[in-house]
Amino acid sequence: MKGKLLYEGKAKKLYATDDAEVVLVEYKDDATAFNGEKKGTITGKGEMNNAITTLLFTLLAKEGVENHFIEKINPREQLCRKVEIVPVEVIVRNKAAGSMAKRLGLEEGTELKTTVFEISYKNDDLGDPLINDHHAVAIGLTTFEELKAIYNMAAKVNEVLSAFFLKIGITLIDFKLEFGRASDGRLLLADEISPDTCRFWDAATGKKLDKDRFRRDLGSVEDAYHEVLSRMENAGE
Amino acid sequence: MKGKLLYEGKAKKLYATDDAEVVLVEYKDDATAFNGEKKGTITGKGEMNNAITTLLFTLLAKEGVENHFIEKINPREQLCRKVEIVPVEVIVRNKAAGSMAKRLGLEEGTELKTTVFEISYKNDDLGDPLINDHHAVAIGLTTFEELKAIYNMAAKVNEVLSAFFLKIGITLIDFKLEFGRASDGRLLLADEISPDTCRFWDAATGKKLDKDRFRRDLGSVEDAYHEVLSRMENAGE
Repeated sequence: MKGKLLYEGKAKKLYATDDAEVVLVEYKDDATAFNGEKKGTITGKGEMNNAITTLLFTLLAKEGVENHFIEKINPREQLCRKVEIVPVEVIVRNKAAGSMAKRLGLEEGTELKTTVFEISYKNDDLGDPLINDHHAVAIGLTTFEELKAIYNMAAKVNEVLSAFFLKIGITLIDFKLEFGRASDGRLLLADEISPDTCRFWDAATGKKLDKDRFRRDLGSVEDAYHEVLSRMENAGE
Repeated sequence: MKGKLLYEGKAKKLYATDDAEVVLVEYKDDATAFNGEKKGTITGKGEMNNAITTLLFTLLAKEGVENHFIEKINPREQLCRKVEIVPVEVIVRNKAAGSMAKRLGLEEGTELKTTVFEISYKNDDLGDPLINDHHAVAIGLTTFEELKAIYNMAAKVNEVLSAFFLKIGITLIDFKLEFGRASDGRLLLADEISPDTCRFWDAATGKKLDKDRFRRDLGSVEDAYHEVLSRMENAGE
């Protein structure tokens, strides 16, 4: 069933399967930050992110957000629909943090007058630069129509996930999404949603429960990922 | 008539006048680049940019683009309506050049599939960073409604100026605009339009006729500004 390695990314490997429409995604324990400049391992991350993504993509499908997830087949692996990834990363921000806080000279946690949707050009050589819709269309990465559909889906994801995490005492500060084009032309939410791709702050204490613990050497990285997963499992989703 | 100095920028000084609604703008010969890191003087620039901006703002007013320009009162000075500047710079790009070419890994002069409109946050301490509409609204610089009006005006400016410069053998590669809010709430095109704020390439040879000659030490800086002005004057606008 696990066929040829199609692609190895920083956190996952993609394999072909005997169905040309289906890929097998293997979640790795490898962690990188700052465009690959910092490298490390987070023990158990692969299994935790596979489990977290499975729960979240299942919830999102139930709420009408079409996505590539098919099923989790073992602790570290899941099957997904094969898609052509749109080469823009979409970042949704409910409060200022990370690169946006730095770019705009804001303190992390600053309230925003509107939800911020950002896109960046998926290009490691260029450092995944922030771009706008015009840039993306001007160089042929996507179309204005596809971007409109992407932003609509991203807004829906934010609505569903913010409410879900609030229930388990976590503030969803920001997150990154990727989208893919299926063989039938449909736009699907793809990639993963996990503490690697989100900022999760404990709603009561503000404690960071995400990859910033790795990026910023805050310690207890595995514990934070585990905390997120166990609150999710206890929520029964 | 020339009252208190209200503001001194990199290329211009603003003075009060005896009319609270009117400011006097004095164009300087000072030139800066790379957020003020490079400094110099371009002999005659003040007079040339005052003349060029006068011609272009007069043309734009005729074509229905409301702007702050009132009249040129001497070689170096003009009167303008007083406005509150919207703290975003608007860049319109017909071909890739400068920071966009660098950001996206494109050769200068690359054709674009759509005209690119960019905004940056007018903030010297932060280096005028590229932002998108959501950032601008999220931190209270402007509103989505005002941005829509700004983009509509910027598109009209591009249409008028591209056609005008084409007639005098100049390709308008890109340019920067600023907008202001008048005391009656109207949105006006403000600032200047000159070889300091535009990329002008000779349509036949590709020769740069703008501030890139200063930024990149290409020589003949004054000649280039003078060439633009004299072609404009000969066009009878």
